[in-house]
Amino acid sequence: MDFFETVEKRYSHKEGFLPTPVPREHLEKIAHAGLMAPSGTNAQSVSLVLLPDRAAVQSLCDIASSAGLATAPAAIALFTDSATQKGPENFEKEDYSAACENMLLAATAMGYSALWLDYLYFDENNQKAALALFNAPEGFHLHVVIPIGMPDGPGSRREKRPFSERMRYVKFE
Amino acid sequence: MDFFETVEKRYSHKEGFLPTPVPREHLEKIAHAGLMAPSGTNAQSVSLVLLPDRAAVQSLCDIASSAGLATAPAAIALFTDSATQKGPENFEKEDYSAACENMLLAATAMGYSALWLDYLYFDENNQKAALALFNAPEGFHLHVVIPIGMPDGPGSRREKRPFSERMRYVKFE
Repeated sequence: MDFFETVEKRYSHKEGFLPTPVPREHLEKIAHAGLMAPSGTNAQSVSLVLLPDRAAVQSLCDIASSAGLATAPAAIALFTDSATQKGPENFEKEDYSAACENMLLAATAMGYSALWLDYLYFDENNQKAALALFNAPEGFHLHVVIPIGMPDGPGSRREKRPFSERMRYVKFE
Repeated sequence: MDFFETVEKRYSHKEGFLPTPVPREHLEKIAHAGLMAPSGTNAQSVSLVLLPDRAAVQSLCDIASSAGLATAPAAIALFTDSATQKGPENFEKEDYSAACENMLLAATAMGYSALWLDYLYFDENNQKAALALFNAPEGFHLHVVIPIGMPDGPGSRREKRPFSERMRYVKFE
């Protein structure tokens, strides 16, 4: 799919999914796009865990769930490794966000719907349980899980403010 | 350009640019792609200032410069507005990072080279001077400037670790 068409089509799918499986090669293509994103000082802090079927996604739902996760046929979990950060600045949030955006666009380009699902893992107990479930190494943090699949409906779109309010030439008035 | 081709072609151009101008409609198309990125709780914290010519970019170079900025025919500055953040979590870093990645890809899709240039603005004095230059409203922060243009050479590419080290199925070993 054309890049700009992909950007226009991407939306946050907060609703359910059809059970149609996502082939592993599709999931890997999406993950590859995520890992191609830039990272602060090229530290490549992001690691991914691919959940290729309903059973794998369900283990995560047993910790905490949402409409999307409860029905998603596949998902990708995004971690960063704090041990990669050696300088005075920490780029873990920037790194996972760029990787996440690449994967949301990649899923869209392949005809899937997806979601940047983060709030479940802000909860300390959910975070601990998820790190244990995934056997995550020391220093890893789970930031986002992206449910991926064919949507069970058109999905709602959040409204955006007019871009003219958010874009200026040379300086703010 | 195809989405996946765009992802493969994007790289961090840390070198110089040719003086070839970037038409305003190209700059706006790149900015539009940036503002299409998702944002935490849809708060849309990101605002952009477009620097459409060498004179506008030069004002910024007078504060702090780099090889790319010193020759870039155009650039886009990314700000977030902290007043948009109402909840317990702050999503400014996630928001600008997703918007920035969209713009780096958009520039690539249009045949330009670009760079996620942030380190100059970590310095408190540079930050203050840049906010003043752009007449940024109270609560705004300048995170990144993206120099955009035709590269004056092929540009260097940072090496990435094998993706097999950063991607697992179901859980970490």
